Amino acid sequence: MTVKAYAAEAADKPLGPYAIERREAGPSDVVIEIAFCGVCHSDLHTVRSEWGGTLYPCVPGHEIVGTVSAVGSAVTRFAPGDTVGVGCIVDSCRTCSACGEGLEQFCASGMTGTYNSPTPDAPGHTLGGYSERIVVDQAYVLAIRHPKEQLAAVAPLLCAGITTWSPLRHWQAGPGKRVGVVGIGGLGHMAVKLARALGAEVTAFTTNPAKEAAIRDLGAHHVVVSTDKGAMKAARESLDLIINTVSHSHDLDPYLLTLKRNGTMVMVGGPEKPHPMPTLFHFLTRRRSLAGSLIGGIAETQEMLDFCAEHGVVSDIELIRMEEIEGAYQRMLKSDVRYRFVIDTSTI
Amino acid sequence: MTVKAYAAEAADKPLGPYAIERREAGPSDVVIEIAFCGVCHSDLHTVRSEWGGTLYPCVPGHEIVGTVSAVGSAVTRFAPGDTVGVGCIVDSCRTCSACGEGLEQFCASGMTGTYNSPTPDAPGHTLGGYSERIVVDQAYVLAIRHPKEQLAAVAPLLCAGITTWSPLRHWQAGPGKRVGVVGIGGLGHMAVKLARALGAEVTAFTTNPAKEAAIRDLGAHHVVVSTDKGAMKAARESLDLIINTVSHSHDLDPYLLTLKRNGTMVMVGGPEKPHPMPTLFHFLTRRRSLAGSLIGGIAETQEMLDFCAEHGVVSDIELIRMEEIEGAYQRMLKSDVRYRFVIDTSTI
Repeated sequence: MTVKAYAAEAADKPLGPYAIERREAGPSDVVIEIAFCGVCHSDLHTVRSEWGGTLYPCVPGHEIVGTVSAVGSAVTRFAPGDTVGVGCIVDSCRTCSACGEGLEQFCASGMTGTYNSPTPDAPGHTLGGYSERIVVDQAYVLAIRHPKEQLAAVAPLLCAGITTWSPLRHWQAGPGKRVGVVGIGGLGHMAVKLARALGAEVTAFTTNPAKEAAIRDLGAHHVVVSTDKGAMKAARESLDLIINTVSHSHDLDPYLLTLKRNGTMVMVGGPEKPHPMPTLFHFLTRRRSLAGSLIGGIAETQEMLDFCAEHGVVSDIELIRMEEIEGAYQRMLKSDVRYRFVIDTSTI
Repeated sequence: MTVKAYAAEAADKPLGPYAIERREAGPSDVVIEIAFCGVCHSDLHTVRSEWGGTLYPCVPGHEIVGTVSAVGSAVTRFAPGDTVGVGCIVDSCRTCSACGEGLEQFCASGMTGTYNSPTPDAPGHTLGGYSERIVVDQAYVLAIRHPKEQLAAVAPLLCAGITTWSPLRHWQAGPGKRVGVVGIGGLGHMAVKLARALGAEVTAFTTNPAKEAAIRDLGAHHVVVSTDKGAMKAARESLDLIINTVSHSHDLDPYLLTLKRNGTMVMVGGPEKPHPMPTLFHFLTRRRSLAGSLIGGIAETQEMLDFCAEHGVVSDIELIRMEEIEGAYQRMLKSDVRYRFVIDTSTI
């Protein structure tokens, strides 16, 4: 079936209207009419092939929400009319130990990403959510239980939400735990909301003092301006866990020092050039750790969506029309968004 | 009391005979006639002020074993004739949360090291085990239950042993766990022995193929020559935990790749210049961690000593006379020791 989308045809070309082919629904497939799609930094990196290896035409978008319009004969979990989401993963081997544990993002054969991954479907690589419709195996489709009017603000949960939820859960953020969040953008603002909703005491680090009140409104108990050396010193050894969402190269030492004994800083962003090596002494002297985390599995994405529906957690968004995407990318590069752009896909 | 020792009087001076003053035994003190003292890389770093801040005269040595000759009036845990040890710590605040948890190495006020730490005693800083006698508060003295004839080989357990034991225990090495050890020197050979005795499957990494048989004799199930790219590739994603004992700057990436999902590499050495920053992608794609660990607390040092006595674990040593120390340092710098020098302090 032919579907209207927005695609880039080369790394140096802007996104524009493009007709793509989607496969007909197989027995286990769900056909989803996309209502909204969040705009992730990865979309921009991929469209411009900044990480290399982008396959064109490129249709980005992996924060997808919409309504089921048809299902295959073997589909048991969804029915037409259901509100659903699709995140970063649309397939995986389903047999390796990671898939067996519901951690498809670590699939030994490599997960199939929602865009730019090999697939038997035309044109040979997956095409994402900057489009009107998508066809996804039911095993990779998420149920959305938020009120319908929140749907646009739910979209960013599918990547920004799960990317911060997964390490918060794995490193057991909750009551009695003190959690720091570095960088209050698309990912960071979700980390603040989720850590707060999980019952942790939340400290947000920002370089921008002007954001302080807004960050408190997100749920942060404490806001530390990271360029204020006195404030950083006062925050030393106060945190059990840090979710570091900053994707540009920066000095990790000041944040490591805010970790208590046995504390862990989890990196969820991939910088274009390496961070400077942090001081090893800071690891040894308080048994601190530096770790990395990558999105999250399907089961924990569903867990996160259900938790957010129950606790009324959504993303703070700016809704845009499809043709505004290049301008949105420009603003995103300047961190000028509170806190996530979401495309109204009816405007494609 | 005046005690014979070996001291350096400046960073550029060799160690030589030196008379030091020890305090008279207070109520909670134990007087120990030192029989043997292990030679740690830290001794050399400190004697030559390579980390800066060395106070002179400097008497190094924190792998101390000997016999109790006298005890203060309030001492309940030891009696004259007891075989005892002293490791890296001779005092701490005893009131902070770290001390309360038996993790004196992380004392909030800073532990008192066995040498080169401030003390009210003459000459104002602590003097270590390259001496005939030491006076230590009973709370920092360890009981040794090995057979007397193993005493020299027990000495390195007090630093090399506990430095590797502590992370092995904290990160739960044991049956069903696969543990890697990077660098098979003083610390690494203990890590191999201890991980094996704890029931883990042990992989030793060495740059020296000639050491392979000897490393198997230590208890390693597998030996991987780290310069052999094929062998390193074959070892990918095989390990739960790595104890990295190498104290010079090196590329951490090849070792990170040998960690399975959720695996941790623990650094226990302090390099003179920083390691290159490892590739963040390797953290994210398997939720790996890099951590640091520092010696160990008094309670876990006793636990380790008791475990070693029960399992017949000691260090492989080369016994030297005190006057051979400078030559021993030279050989240690070339990694030409299997695996730890121990000073017979009766030769002072």
